[in-house]
Amino acid sequence: MHAIGPVNALYPMPTTLVGATVNEKPNFLAVAHVGILNHGTPQYLSIGLHKSHYTNAGIHENRTFSICLPSEDLMVATDYCGIMSGKKTDKAALFDVFYGELKNAPMIHQCPVNMEMKLHEVLDFETHDIFVGELVQTHADDRVLRDGSIDIAKLKPLLFDMASKQYWALGEPVGNCWNAGKALKG
Amino acid sequence: MHAIGPVNALYPMPTTLVGATVNEKPNFLAVAHVGILNHGTPQYLSIGLHKSHYTNAGIHENRTFSICLPSEDLMVATDYCGIMSGKKTDKAALFDVFYGELKNAPMIHQCPVNMEMKLHEVLDFETHDIFVGELVQTHADDRVLRDGSIDIAKLKPLLFDMASKQYWALGEPVGNCWNAGKALKG
Repeated sequence: MHAIGPVNALYPMPTTLVGATVNEKPNFLAVAHVGILNHGTPQYLSIGLHKSHYTNAGIHENRTFSICLPSEDLMVATDYCGIMSGKKTDKAALFDVFYGELKNAPMIHQCPVNMEMKLHEVLDFETHDIFVGELVQTHADDRVLRDGSIDIAKLKPLLFDMASKQYWALGEPVGNCWNAGKALKG
Repeated sequence: MHAIGPVNALYPMPTTLVGATVNEKPNFLAVAHVGILNHGTPQYLSIGLHKSHYTNAGIHENRTFSICLPSEDLMVATDYCGIMSGKKTDKAALFDVFYGELKNAPMIHQCPVNMEMKLHEVLDFETHDIFVGELVQTHADDRVLRDGSIDIAKLKPLLFDMASKQYWALGEPVGNCWNAGKALKG
C-alpha cells in the first residue's frame, strides 16, 4: 500500500448534462462531479461547478436546473458540452430541448433520463458552487423503461474517470445487493 | 418521454466501505450514496448516511472517517457490511485493518484504494447526516497503480444501482474526455 497524496479516487461517476436557463436561453454543461446526498422524499442531489462556468449565474438567478443522463451514443455531443462555453456557443442547438413542471429547467429529448431540480441551497466552496437540488420530477424514455423502472443496462450510462481522462461503459451485473453478503452470516 | 415521479436515477455510483472508529473500535459500513463536491486541493467528498446507522456517532465524535474502495472480488464482504449493523457485529474482523495519518480512520488492506478523510462539516438533512470530508491522504495498492496513477480497469470498482438492486462491473473505455467532442467544433 502506497501513500500517493490526496488523490480523489471516487470514480467512476455518471456523466451528466446539467441544464439551466442562462441569460434567458437554455444551456447545457457536462458535469460528472455529482452526488447523492440522502435517500428518500424529498430526494436531494448535488452538482459541483467551478465558479468560472457560465451556468452558475443562471442557477443562482432562476433557482432551477436539470440533470440529464446521456447514453454512450451521446458521448461526442456530451463531451462538446464540456469543452465549449455557453458564453460563446449555443450548445442547446445540438439537442431537442423540452421543459417539464419547472418552466426554466431545460431538458434533452435525446437523453433517455432527465431530472428536474429545484435549488435547495448552495454550498459556497472557495472555487466551486455546490448546488444542492431537490428532485421534482424524472422523465424517462420508453426505450430505457422496464415495468415502469429505469433499466440501467438499457440506459447505457456514460461513466467518467479522472485518472484515465476517459469515458467508460457500464459492464455486467455481478451480484445482488442486500443479498450477496448473506453468505457470511453465521 | 414519461414523467415517472421524482425517482433518483443518478446511478451507478461507486460502492464504498466507510470506516470509522465507533465506541473505540473500527467499524465499516457499505455506502454508495456518495459525492464529489469540488475539484482541487483541498478536495472535498461527501457521504450520505441515514441517521439510524451505528457509524454516525463515531464520525461526529472523532471527526474522521475513511472511504475505502472494494474491488469486485470483495463483493460478498462489502454487501455483508451493508446488511449487518456494527451494533451487534464486529465487521472489522473480516479485514486486515490499518491506519494512516489520522489515528482513528480505519482502512482495509484488502481494498486496493483507501482514502483518509477529516470531517469538514455535517449537513443536517431530516433523516440523513451528510458528512463532508476533506481528503487527507490516499493509499493505493501496487496492483492498481500504473505510473503512479490509479488504473480504474485494474481497480475493478463495484458499482451500485438502486433500481436493479444489483452490483455492476465497469465496462470498457469508450472515448477520451475533453477530446471526443472536438469533432463537433466548426
